[in-house]
Amino acid sequence: MYRIGIDLGGTFVKAGLVDENGKIIIKSKIPTLVKRDHAEVIDDMSAQAKKLCLDAGVDFAEVVSVGIGCPGAITGSTGEVSYSCNLDWRNVPLGGMLSERLGKPVKVSNDANVAALGEALYGAGKNYSDIIMLTLGTGVGGGIVIGKKLYEGNESKGAELGHMVICSGGERCACGRCGCFEAYCSASALIRDTKRAMEKDGSSLMWEIAGGSIDGVNGETAFIAEKRGDKSAAEVIERYVFYLAEGIMNFCNIFRPQAIVLGGGVSEQGANLTDRVTELCRKGYYGYKGTPEVEILTATLKNDAGLIGAAFL
Amino acid sequence: MYRIGIDLGGTFVKAGLVDENGKIIIKSKIPTLVKRDHAEVIDDMSAQAKKLCLDAGVDFAEVVSVGIGCPGAITGSTGEVSYSCNLDWRNVPLGGMLSERLGKPVKVSNDANVAALGEALYGAGKNYSDIIMLTLGTGVGGGIVIGKKLYEGNESKGAELGHMVICSGGERCACGRCGCFEAYCSASALIRDTKRAMEKDGSSLMWEIAGGSIDGVNGETAFIAEKRGDKSAAEVIERYVFYLAEGIMNFCNIFRPQAIVLGGGVSEQGANLTDRVTELCRKGYYGYKGTPEVEILTATLKNDAGLIGAAFL
Repeated sequence: MYRIGIDLGGTFVKAGLVDENGKIIIKSKIPTLVKRDHAEVIDDMSAQAKKLCLDAGVDFAEVVSVGIGCPGAITGSTGEVSYSCNLDWRNVPLGGMLSERLGKPVKVSNDANVAALGEALYGAGKNYSDIIMLTLGTGVGGGIVIGKKLYEGNESKGAELGHMVICSGGERCACGRCGCFEAYCSASALIRDTKRAMEKDGSSLMWEIAGGSIDGVNGETAFIAEKRGDKSAAEVIERYVFYLAEGIMNFCNIFRPQAIVLGGGVSEQGANLTDRVTELCRKGYYGYKGTPEVEILTATLKNDAGLIGAAFL
Repeated sequence: MYRIGIDLGGTFVKAGLVDENGKIIIKSKIPTLVKRDHAEVIDDMSAQAKKLCLDAGVDFAEVVSVGIGCPGAITGSTGEVSYSCNLDWRNVPLGGMLSERLGKPVKVSNDANVAALGEALYGAGKNYSDIIMLTLGTGVGGGIVIGKKLYEGNESKGAELGHMVICSGGERCACGRCGCFEAYCSASALIRDTKRAMEKDGSSLMWEIAGGSIDGVNGETAFIAEKRGDKSAAEVIERYVFYLAEGIMNFCNIFRPQAIVLGGGVSEQGANLTDRVTELCRKGYYGYKGTPEVEILTATLKNDAGLIGAAFL
């Protein structure tokens, strides 16, 4: 018995044939070419799914289901992509169209949600039943897994964990509100704050690390400079960690999950990030004494989380 | 088939005999007298439960289960009260002790959680499967109901919805953090802000409404003065509604529940509160267009929510 998981992105479509134990048998990657009609993209996905089986020597009949992780707003019950900025799709019945082509049940969910499910089932969260995943990338994505199942909210429109205001009236967020968690803790926010600090401190090591240009800044610049003793960089990181802990403590108080799993580019700092956040959280979360601790972990499946999670939708 | 629901408070123990349709057949109220040994309190609860049946002419054998809503930190799996400030109890095996006395299964949960369950099953939330309840009282209590079931988090230590920071570095909260939702939207916060506004404006109508003394302020003072055209009161209410909407939008984005139910003293403002909050939320919550609306409702069961919810734990 096999499942196919598909990670549909604005640039590539990644697909994997996954066994019952969450192991990827074979995977492939094709360009999405989003400027085409969506039907052509779905035709290619269909061919890609069948080819995976062919290449792996697995009878396509042994595939019980197909799942897709897709950026944007998805209606889980119908498999429709309500709106995806990255794909420039509106009201595309993705699940139905692929199901028709493959003759298999197809489920669709938001890409951050499927990554959370993957990590919960076979990654950093595999020993827990209730986890929250936060993806610290261009934005802050989120996924809620309760009892090993995704909780997506009404018409799958929940789990927008990056859009929890933690600092009312603060930094403007792309969603229109001010002070969202995402506006402080995405990689983009970290890059913005790194640039601001460099502009204030012409002698910061961050300039050298960024190759002498503000355009050379990325999500690692301040972390590298901090390790080399740069004071301005240390301030940037301290602020970043503080707000990350503020948001994480909120999720601890709201959900009291067994674990919170951090994914996305910034999470690659590993224990350097999780240890510092854990220390702050221990001081702050509600009724800490006598209440169960929340483990703060780094995602382990990296880019495969989406494929594996999609397969188990 | 009947159930008994008990609302254990610091002053009174209220108990009700509830039928299968969530209707209270009979209820009673006895003083808690918390200064006694906890075993005596539990002895009285046991007698109270049996007397309910006697008074209602219902055979005690027809009672299938007993549930208790209790203030403080409860471990749902064992029915133990880990800590309750109102009762001054620590590690009291309440569920087990009452079960022993009654010979019935007894479940225990936090009082805000059971009120949420009551409203979800038989109150304002009865037509929905996923609701969030916020109790705007001395603090801000919360309850999460997903698929008509309570979600309480690890060892029942979640759903502390009042302790989500919405204004990092803001008003100090009793929990130790700064800027919690509770520090802006509890009745206590509203009273604090009303007093502050009165101290700034000696000519405000709020003085008259409070009987000429700052000690006469309650959660209604500013609402009454606003209706009578007082500018300072209008500012207090505008600020209150703004922060309430900030918190509620966060819960919309996190959970995208079908409804959010407001209970507690401040919620008695009814549509005057819910209409204003709904208007702000419609402008702000994530991806509003094309996504399902979240109904913002006033609780309907009032003080009975705890009894009914406890009965259905």
